[in-house]
This record gives sequence, C-alpha cells and structure tokens, in this order.
Amino acid sequence: MSEGQPAEPSGAAAVWRWLIGPPLRARDVSKERITPVEGLPALSLDALTSVAYGPEAIIVVLAVAGASALHLVLPITITIVLLLAILVFSYRQVIDAYPNGGGAYAVSRANLGHGASLVAAAALVVDYTLTVAVSIAAGVAALTSAFPVLNQDTVVICLVILAVVTVLNLRGLGDAARAFLLPTMVFIVGLLIIIVIGLIHPLALHAPQPGVPLVPRVPLETVSVLLLLKAFSAGCSALTGVEAIANGVPQFKEPRVKRAKRTEMLLGTILGVMLLGLAVLADRWHIGPRSGQTVLSQIIAMAVGRNWAYYVMSLTITLVLALAANTSFGGLPVLGSLLAKDNYLPHLFSLRDDRQVFAPGIWTLSLASAVLLIAVRGNVLTLIPLFAIGVFTGFTLSQSGLVVHWWRTRPPRWEFRAALNGLGATVTAIATMVFILTKFTEGAWVVVIAVPALIFLLSRIHRYYRRVGRELGLGEIPGRPQARPALVVVPVATVSRLAQYAIGVARSISEHVIAVTVVLEDADGSTGRGRELEQEWARWDPGVPLHVLNTEYASVAEPLVAFIDQLCAHHDKQIVVLIPVVLPDRLRYEFLHNHYDLVLTAALRGHPDVVSARISMPLELADGDDPAGSG
Amino acid sequence: MSEGQPAEPSGAAAVWRWLIGPPLRARDVSKERITPVEGLPALSLDALTSVAYGPEAIIVVLAVAGASALHLVLPITITIVLLLAILVFSYRQVIDAYPNGGGAYAVSRANLGHGASLVAAAALVVDYTLTVAVSIAAGVAALTSAFPVLNQDTVVICLVILAVVTVLNLRGLGDAARAFLLPTMVFIVGLLIIIVIGLIHPLALHAPQPGVPLVPRVPLETVSVLLLLKAFSAGCSALTGVEAIANGVPQFKEPRVKRAKRTEMLLGTILGVMLLGLAVLADRWHIGPRSGQTVLSQIIAMAVGRNWAYYVMSLTITLVLALAANTSFGGLPVLGSLLAKDNYLPHLFSLRDDRQVFAPGIWTLSLASAVLLIAVRGNVLTLIPLFAIGVFTGFTLSQSGLVVHWWRTRPPRWEFRAALNGLGATVTAIATMVFILTKFTEGAWVVVIAVPALIFLLSRIHRYYRRVGRELGLGEIPGRPQARPALVVVPVATVSRLAQYAIGVARSISEHVIAVTVVLEDADGSTGRGRELEQEWARWDPGVPLHVLNTEYASVAEPLVAFIDQLCAHHDKQIVVLIPVVLPDRLRYEFLHNHYDLVLTAALRGHPDVVSARISMPLELADGDDPAGSG
Repeated sequence: MSEGQPAEPSGAAAVWRWLIGPPLRARDVSKERITPVEGLPALSLDALTSVAYGPEAIIVVLAVAGASALHLVLPITITIVLLLAILVFSYRQVIDAYPNGGGAYAVSRANLGHGASLVAAAALVVDYTLTVAVSIAAGVAALTSAFPVLNQDTVVICLVILAVVTVLNLRGLGDAARAFLLPTMVFIVGLLIIIVIGLIHPLALHAPQPGVPLVPRVPLETVSVLLLLKAFSAGCSALTGVEAIANGVPQFKEPRVKRAKRTEMLLGTILGVMLLGLAVLADRWHIGPRSGQTVLSQIIAMAVGRNWAYYVMSLTITLVLALAANTSFGGLPVLGSLLAKDNYLPHLFSLRDDRQVFAPGIWTLSLASAVLLIAVRGNVLTLIPLFAIGVFTGFTLSQSGLVVHWWRTRPPRWEFRAALNGLGATVTAIATMVFILTKFTEGAWVVVIAVPALIFLLSRIHRYYRRVGRELGLGEIPGRPQARPALVVVPVATVSRLAQYAIGVARSISEHVIAVTVVLEDADGSTGRGRELEQEWARWDPGVPLHVLNTEYASVAEPLVAFIDQLCAHHDKQIVVLIPVVLPDRLRYEFLHNHYDLVLTAALRGHPDVVSARISMPLELADGDDPAGSG
Repeated sequence: MSEGQPAEPSGAAAVWRWLIGPPLRARDVSKERITPVEGLPALSLDALTSVAYGPEAIIVVLAVAGASALHLVLPITITIVLLLAILVFSYRQVIDAYPNGGGAYAVSRANLGHGASLVAAAALVVDYTLTVAVSIAAGVAALTSAFPVLNQDTVVICLVILAVVTVLNLRGLGDAARAFLLPTMVFIVGLLIIIVIGLIHPLALHAPQPGVPLVPRVPLETVSVLLLLKAFSAGCSALTGVEAIANGVPQFKEPRVKRAKRTEMLLGTILGVMLLGLAVLADRWHIGPRSGQTVLSQIIAMAVGRNWAYYVMSLTITLVLALAANTSFGGLPVLGSLLAKDNYLPHLFSLRDDRQVFAPGIWTLSLASAVLLIAVRGNVLTLIPLFAIGVFTGFTLSQSGLVVHWWRTRPPRWEFRAALNGLGATVTAIATMVFILTKFTEGAWVVVIAVPALIFLLSRIHRYYRRVGRELGLGEIPGRPQARPALVVVPVATVSRLAQYAIGVARSISEHVIAVTVVLEDADGSTGRGRELEQEWARWDPGVPLHVLNTEYASVAEPLVAFIDQLCAHHDKQIVVLIPVVLPDRLRYEFLHNHYDLVLTAALRGHPDVVSARISMPLELADGDDPAGSG
C-alpha cells in the first residue's frame, strides 16, 4: 500500500480478467495442426452450414410466383452445385499455388496489384461481417422454429450468442477445432440420415407444421428470367465459405497441401450432396416458406416428426451456425492485422493483446455484426441480398490472380490450370454481376456503396502513413539530437509539502524553475487569494519565484496554457511543465482529488515542443492509524 | 494547423457548446435581486406545486377504507394547514436569525454541531433528489391526465423533461425568476379561480371523467388511527419546500429580511387556501382516485369542464412542476459546494465550470433523479412514502437549532421566539416519527437506510481529507525543496526523427539519458528485431546508450515499468520517463497512432517518485501537398 503499488483490479476488471483469462505468452498459444476431418469444423463450417439458409433463400424467391414455381428449386440447385464443382476444383489449384494461405487479399496483391487487393480486402471485410450476422440469425431461426415461444426475443438471443462468441474469441479460441468436431459430425451425419430417410420413405411422417404458409394464393409474378436469376443469386449464398480452406492451408498437418486439397474435395462433396438432397425433398414435399419456421426445420420435421431427433437436430444446427460465425472471428482480425502491417488500417489492428489475439479486430467485427443484426431485427432473409456479393468478388479476384500466377510461373500443364481458374473467374464474375443487378434495390446497394467507401478509407489511411513515414525519416539515419537548457514550470495551488516536493523534483531537472498559480476572480472581481499566497511564498522562500495568474473565468487550464505559450514565444529554453499530484493509497480515493493533471495534460496535448510531465507524491500514512479520525 | 493548435471542436463538442453557451466570467453571472412577488416563482414553486400531489396522496390512502372514508380528507387537511401555519411562523424567525440564508445544514452546523449538520445535509440531499423526481412525475401525471394517449410513454416524457431542466441548469439559469413569473401567476390565479367556481357553483359541470375509479367496493381496512396517521403523513408531502425562502434570503432586494418574511407569509396563505379549497371540493364532489387521471385534474374538469381552460391549466401545471424540479437544481449543487468546501464531499463539487455553475452537483442530481424515475416508472404515488421524511428531518433540525440560537443570543422576547421554534421542532419531530413508522414498509425504509449511509460516506470523506491535509502540512511552512541529479529514460520503437527529437529534449533535461526499446518475442521465441535495432543504433550513434528489453508477453508497458522500478531501486537519481509522441495535424488522425503514451502514463500512475513526461513532435507537412499520395 505504502509502496505505491497500483491498487488491486476493481470488481469489473476482475470479472473481465476471469472471463478472458490470464495473459498468455506468444509461445503458449497452441498451434495444433489439423487433419482433413478436423478441417471440416475448423475451416468449412461457414460453407456447410449455409444449407440452413441457401435452399430457403431460393424457395422464398420462387414462392412469389406461386406454388407451381416451387418446382424450379431442383434445376436451380443443380446449377448451383455445378458452380460449386467449378469452385472446388479452382480452389484446389489455389491451394497448390499458395501453400502458405492464399486469401483473396494475398493472391490479388501478389498478382493483380494494389488496387485489386484493396477491392478484395474491402469485399472480405464486408463478407466476414455478413457471415457473422447471417450465421447467427440463421442459427436463431433454427432455434425459434423448434421453440416458437422464443420468437419475440429473436434479436436478444442473437446478441447473446454474439456476445458469447466475442468473449470466447477474446480469450483466444481460434484453434479449438477438436472441440467443434462433435457438433459438426452430428450435424453432417444427422442431416445426411434425414435426407436418406426422406428419400426412401416417400410418404414420410407428416408432422403438423406450425406457422402460416407464405405462398401467395395468386402468383405475384410470372416465372421470368429475372425471377430465375434472382432465385439463383439468392441460392448462391450457399456457396459462401468455400474459399476458407485455401486461406487456412498452413494450419494443416504435413503434407499440408495434400490434406488441404482432400478437405476441399470432402467439403464440396458433402455440401453438394446436402444441397441436392434437400432440393429433392423440398420439391417432393412441396415445401414453401412458412412464418416462424425455416425450410430446413420443415424438412426435418417431415422426415422424422417433431420428436427428440428433431429437437436434437435443431439445437445442433443452432450450435454449428454459432460456430460458423466463430470462423469469421478467426478470419477478420488476421486480415485486419495484415492490412495494418501494410499501412491500410490503424496500426492498432496489428497489435496483439495480452491473450495474443488481435482484440481491435474482434471488437470491430462484433460491433458491426451487432449493428447489422439489430438493423434487420435478426431476420436472415433480409441479409441474403447483401450476402454473397462480397464473397463472389473475392472468388473472382483470387481466380483471376491465379490465372496471372500460372501465366507468370508456367509450371507443367499451366494452360489447363489457367483455363480452369479462368473458368472459375468468369463464372463468378458473371454471378457477381447478376447479384448486383437482380438484388440492387433489395439491399445489394448497401454493399455497392460500402465496398468503395471502405476502399477509399483504406487508401486514405495508407496515404497518411506514407506521409508520416517520410516525416519521421523512416529508413534514414537521422541527424544528431540537439539539446538546449530547460525551464521548468510548476503549477502550485498552495504552500504545502506537495509544492516542496514538486519544486525539489523540478530543481533536479533544471536550475531554471518558476512556480505558477492561477487565482480565480470571484463575483466581486476580488483576487485577494493571490496576494495572500504571495505573502506565504515569501515567508517560505523556497528559492524559486512564484508567478500569480489572475483569471475572470472558471478555467484553471486556459490561463496556464496561455502563460506557457508566452514563455515559449520569448525563451529559447526547452519548456517542461511539471504537474504535481497526490497519489492516494487506495484507488477509491482518486475520486477525492481534483484531476487538474488530466485537464492540464489534455490542454497541453496540442502544444508541441512543451514537455508535459507529472510527478506523484505518495501519501505515506497507512489507513486506520488515525485516532481522531472518526468523522 | 502547423502551429500545433488543437483541432477545432468536433461535431458533438460544438453541439454541446451551443446547448450550454460560451464560457462566462464570474462577474457576468447576473445577480438580480427579487421582490416578494418574484420570490414566489424563484423560491416557492416547490411548496406551491405540491397541491398537485399532496391532496391526492391523502385521498389514495383513505380510499383503501372505502368511499365513506373519503370524507376524512377535510379534517386531515385542516390539521396539515395548522402545521403549515406553525412552520410559516417558525421560518419567519429563521429569516430573522439568519439573514444570510439559513439552510438546515448551516443552522445546525452553527448551533447543534457537526453530527446534526451531517444529518441535515444527508436529509437535504435525499430531499432534493426526491423533489426533482416527485415534481417531474406529478407534472407528467397532469399531462397524461389531459392527454391519455401519452400514458404509455410516461417514463420517456419524465426523462425528456429532466434532460431539458438539466441542460438549462448547466447553462446557468438559476436566477431567471422573472421568466418563471408568468406561468406561476397563471397557476396560482387559475387554481384560485377554479376553487371559487367550484364553491359558488355547487353543482358544477359534471364532465365525463376518463379512467376507472380505484375506490374498492368493499373497504380493505376500517378507519383506524393508523390509517388516519398514514393519510396525514402522505398529505404532509404538500408542506415540502416551505423552508426554501429562508434559505434564499440573500437573493431578496433590501430590506431583504422584511421582503423574505412577507414572501413566506404570502406563500403560507396561498398554499393554505389552496389546500383547504381543494379539500372542500374533493369532499363535496366525492372525488376518489382514478386510473390515468389525477385528483387535481378531476377537480379542474368538474369545475370548468374538459375545455380550453382545462387544457391550459393542465399544461400550466406540468410547466410549473418542471420549474419546481428546477428549484432543486438551484439548491443541491450549492449545498454540494458548501459540503465540498467543508471537506465532506469530493472537492470537485466546489469547482465552478466555465458557465460558473457547479456542474458535478447538477449531474449527480440529474442522474439520481433519473434512476428514481425509472425505478418507479414515473409513478408519483410510489415516491410519496419516501418523500417528506428528509424534509421534516431538516425542519426539526433547523427549528431545534433556532431554539439553541435564541437561548445563546437572548435578544428581546427570546423566550417567545424559542417557544415558537420549539413548538415547530416538536411537531415536525413527531411528524417525522409518524412518517417513518407508518410508511416504513411502503418505501420509507429506503430513506432510513440512505440517510445514515450518506452520513457515513460524508464522514469517511471528511476523515480522508483531514489525513491528506496533515500529510501535506497545510498551514505549516514546509522545509526547503531537495534536488538530486536526473536520469531520463526515453522509450523508442525505431531509429527515426522522432527518436532524434526525443533524445534532444531528454539531453536538455539531463546529461544522463538512456533509450529503451521493448521487443516482443514472436511465437518461435525469436527476438531478431532487437539485434537489428541495436545495429541501426550503432550506425546512428546519437550519443546515448540503447537498452533492449525482450518480453514473451504482448504488453509493452509491463517490461518498461519493471525496468524503471529496477532503476529506481539501484539509483539515487530522479528518474524521468520521457515518452515521445507524434502530434498529427488533424484530430481525426489520432486514431491512426498507437497511444503507447496513454498506456505507459497509466501504467506509471501508481509509481511515486518517477516523473512521467510526454513530448509531442508536430507533423509539419501540410495535408494535400503529397503528389504521389493517391492510394
């Protein structure tokens, strides 16, 4: 206590420390390497769980044209699965080319230049944020389908899940792939079993479905090409996340390229089978959108009934969707740190906190997702038109980058490889244009504005850092430091041991010391306190002159700052303002001291060439040995 | 810009400045002196407006015993008016004795000692807070009685009114008595006319009353002595504020004692007439409590019908109740400043802000009232049991203090004066006991806990300040300041012009300078960056040694602080930590710099004897002359 130790952390700080855990060393952070099976939970949850909203997105669009249009879900799904196949083979090549992790940002920076890499970065930022919001909203939709009573609290449940995911990531849970294995397997195996049951029991249990069918009696539109394109682009939300394995190649066990490619293949196969299976069942059972119940929930209920199996699957889906949101938390903060190291984001984003995670990136992602979830009131379908544009922009850029890469390096069979990635780039570029055109008025304009705005922001930041770098002469050998005599200004309020202590410290720094005091004029214009203090000072005679500043206003800082500016203008000395403060022995007593030091330091912040310094004098007396101290 | 001026205030700061106005000089603050008629709006609104809730409080209690018990409203009101008369004559004597303002705190401190003055202070704090909450809640009840559609938004409307009153007081509106004159006169004259109409038109317009009568069909209680006492103590809430004139004597024009006494008499007469008149009307018209409509609103509607006159009166009542809340904002901050000057509250409460108002007191009162209003959901009747205890405690203490005062000074007729104040003290002491006993379980326990808790807090604060005063040797002549050689530690991150500049400044302060850098070990335990920096340093050779600190954790501050603690332990030098920062030319760029200086300054805060200093290097280059700067 009397050694001036900072007080023990207060209640809130202690709770926070308990939540996120003690500080970690860099070497403490586990670097477990993963196998293809573990790769599914670690890197593919975003893609796999999109079966929870992709088919639904198609059906909702088609339902506008009435019940008969719902049959088109199957051909549209087949098209999407074909696109999936192209993407999977393209990304297997990305893995070959970038065994150190080929995110869209890295690939475009290496092959397409700064402009394209910024587009990729901005698109990825938008995409990561949307992935979190969409996954959590879809997870909560699965939950409220099973437990309709929770429907009213959708937004609150979304935010609670987001908060849990945020805290887990601030703890640093990035690599806990093994913990995610069980729910992922329950999800994959369970959903495949449900599809099989649905296919072999053509007249499955027809459980009564809650909710109201939302298929209009009279079709609102005829089945036009535009409607088909809209349904296709909505369904493409099921393909988001296919790129994640290529980004995460370094996380695999050796031979990592081989294992990563195998995982990509596994993901493609499972996702394709699921999408096709669900489309066949939706078609067979004439599943349309219903209020308060998701399409996936309807299919599960039709296949197995609303019994324990249905509830286990619903809870599992909620859980894996929350884990899918978690994978974005693995991605965005790392991307943010890369951008910060390249001077495109505030350097803050490249700093690890004491759990060795990039906390500013985690907080930013969490806040942005919370805003999105609140804005759409937790409704996943409102987010779908915004989704996929960012992802497909990233697809196009990495595939195009790969084409350039093959053309530059020309390995064996480079023409075939370039053609495959070229096909991927072309198809995804067309898809991106389709998304923007068909969904522009339904929300896609947000992304069309956000991505260029982000690019502008990133390049402005870059420009500022370049300027600072030049100003600071980074990379040059600077000249010799120049010294000059110092003049120390000590603000004092009264004659006391604090003033004595502060003047002692000031004399240690320089032989030129001035004490200054500010006297507030009272309502009658009297400044009697000033003369009083001058007399006390003369009686004390500490060997340092006292300068009294009178002011008519209530601010102490302003006259002091004006005085210091005057000194700067008339002296060639190095001005040092030394602010003495009393250091209470308990944190809770801080509130009893006027923090003039903070006010003054803030007021001096904008004044270059002035050293603003603070010295704390400890209060020595221990608490409690104050015999007369009962108030 | 390049002169290092602080950037112009940002949007929010500019709006705030516009709301509260430019800084004022002490002499700018108007000191208009008031006449008795102006004394009513300035000092008596709290008392006068209590007719809006006092009679209702009686009727609600009586209604529990059924419709027939409602007739007791008249005898109870007569008792309360008698008590009012005693109080008015007692307080006229307080004005005689304390022409400089005789608040309960000042009177008890002068006559009854510290203990009693603390009780008075704590009771007053509780009372001021409750007055704000009760007045605003009653004002909104008048509003929602007239416009039932607003009923759902009661709490929001309460908080908006509170916010407006808070901002006006932060501007400094304490003395704008003249502006309050018109609504106060409309309120007094209007209500008196309504009472007269009610009395001479015995069968007044029977306007249909909205809301459901809340008189139980079967009485829940018989009329017991306890019920009578409860109704009496609830009705005593109408007497709160009677003391305000005695507190505000210095605000009157000379001869101020005479004018203040005349105002007190005027207040007593008007309030007594109103209370009696309303009781007669309530009795005659069998007025009982109704949901969503106040008793006063019912009486007005019965007298004049629900026409323009009714709406004008309702809005006037809301306005004067808001102004009554405003008078507490005149009282608590001043009491807070007195307590702070006597070392019972943090000294912060005695500081005027740049509008010359005691802003911390205003904020505290506003926040506490907001919490109360939210806790009771804007329902004035929930607050009534808490109310009046604090006020009557204050009454008792000032009256008792006066008895001691007369006994000590013995002016002519002192025995009569002492007897009058003694009667006041006895009656209010009995009333206080009645309140506590009858309303304990209905909320009074909150006050019974809060007052002693506040007293404990105040005396703990006092004890701390006494200790600090001894420690600082206030009132003594300190010894001579002691100086010793200084050693300056400069944290650097890289070789740059910033390091050059900082070392120059450090050399100005002392010839003993060490540069220190912290190198974060990466995941592989490598600290190669440290050796690199040492080589660059050797090439530069600034004449100052570089000390490299390696750390396995992610914090830069901790190893630095540990290093400084080691230096302190092994040197007898005065350690100065000089933290260099880049000063961006625009405020918005601050976000692009890592504020290591803030982190380090915070970490060093608890370390006595170490000077923590900051030097800002301005970025000279103007924005825009960067030809290659398009990102």
